[in-house]
Amino acid sequence: MHYPVVNKHGEIIASAVTNLDLHDISRSAKTYGVGAFYVVTPLADQKELVEKIVAHWLKGTGGTYNPKRKEALKLIVVKNTLDEVIDHIRKDTGDAPKTIVTSANQKPRNISFRRFREMLQDGTSYLLILGTGWGLSENFIAKADYVLNPVLGNTGYNHLSVRCAAAVMLDRLLGTND
Amino acid sequence: MHYPVVNKHGEIIASAVTNLDLHDISRSAKTYGVGAFYVVTPLADQKELVEKIVAHWLKGTGGTYNPKRKEALKLIVVKNTLDEVIDHIRKDTGDAPKTIVTSANQKPRNISFRRFREMLQDGTSYLLILGTGWGLSENFIAKADYVLNPVLGNTGYNHLSVRCAAAVMLDRLLGTND
Repeated sequence: MHYPVVNKHGEIIASAVTNLDLHDISRSAKTYGVGAFYVVTPLADQKELVEKIVAHWLKGTGGTYNPKRKEALKLIVVKNTLDEVIDHIRKDTGDAPKTIVTSANQKPRNISFRRFREMLQDGTSYLLILGTGWGLSENFIAKADYVLNPVLGNTGYNHLSVRCAAAVMLDRLLGTND
Repeated sequence: MHYPVVNKHGEIIASAVTNLDLHDISRSAKTYGVGAFYVVTPLADQKELVEKIVAHWLKGTGGTYNPKRKEALKLIVVKNTLDEVIDHIRKDTGDAPKTIVTSANQKPRNISFRRFREMLQDGTSYLLILGTGWGLSENFIAKADYVLNPVLGNTGYNHLSVRCAAAVMLDRLLGTND
């Protein structure tokens, strides 16, 4: 999600898309068998940028140079809003997905990774939502069906990049750790 | 490690340093309490690039803009070779670290994440080594004390970025997964 997220002052903004987020998160999604990777931004120039990057790897020379990258970037779907994402999934699966947001802060209603890992076995579609910038807006978080625990390491420092946080989350939820 | 690594044709090359590798891997290292993040390249212009990026965040405007980023990038030490890294650790701790390399391929002498997680409790210094490009050279891998299992998801696709692979490895080795 690039909107609605907050900046370092807590103001709601639309953040810029980062090229390597597209590559890294689609590669992680492909590795862990995720169905689709939605990139959400309401900004026309940002949507064009994503479409251009994806086209380079799907139809352009990128796919010939690195076919494995092509397989990953195929998972990317660009949408204006979360509602559009939910509609898209509903059309595909017949049902709206349950939404689960992530936040770097501990929230009272958080669920653990272990719990969400169990829920993923129940046949429901889940949409795991990550914010860019300084994180998703509080209003947005309040509307989600679930809030996932933050990824904590073993120190007080809690500032992973969104790319790395996504990879760690997918590994905890779907990986084998052997 | 940016040398000796292989390119897509299996030829030994020195790979270019990626700005976001520095940011992401130092942030992950800081999150999981890693002692230092060594960036190894024998290329003078690449070493200058790393020093310049790190200086921006440690001494320049970057550190004022984002003090948390400064804390992470402080972990970066640039060296020409693995031997220089080992000497640096020996001078600091009195002992050479055990080396453990990572590879996207399954090797006969691999150890599991679980095993390495146990080893990390034994008081020894360990140096976890990741290659850029298409991975570390076979010769280099053969000389390491240990080889860690590849990070596998739950699909046959096995092409995480080095940034994301590093984050997942640290989480498996040092995280809590709750």
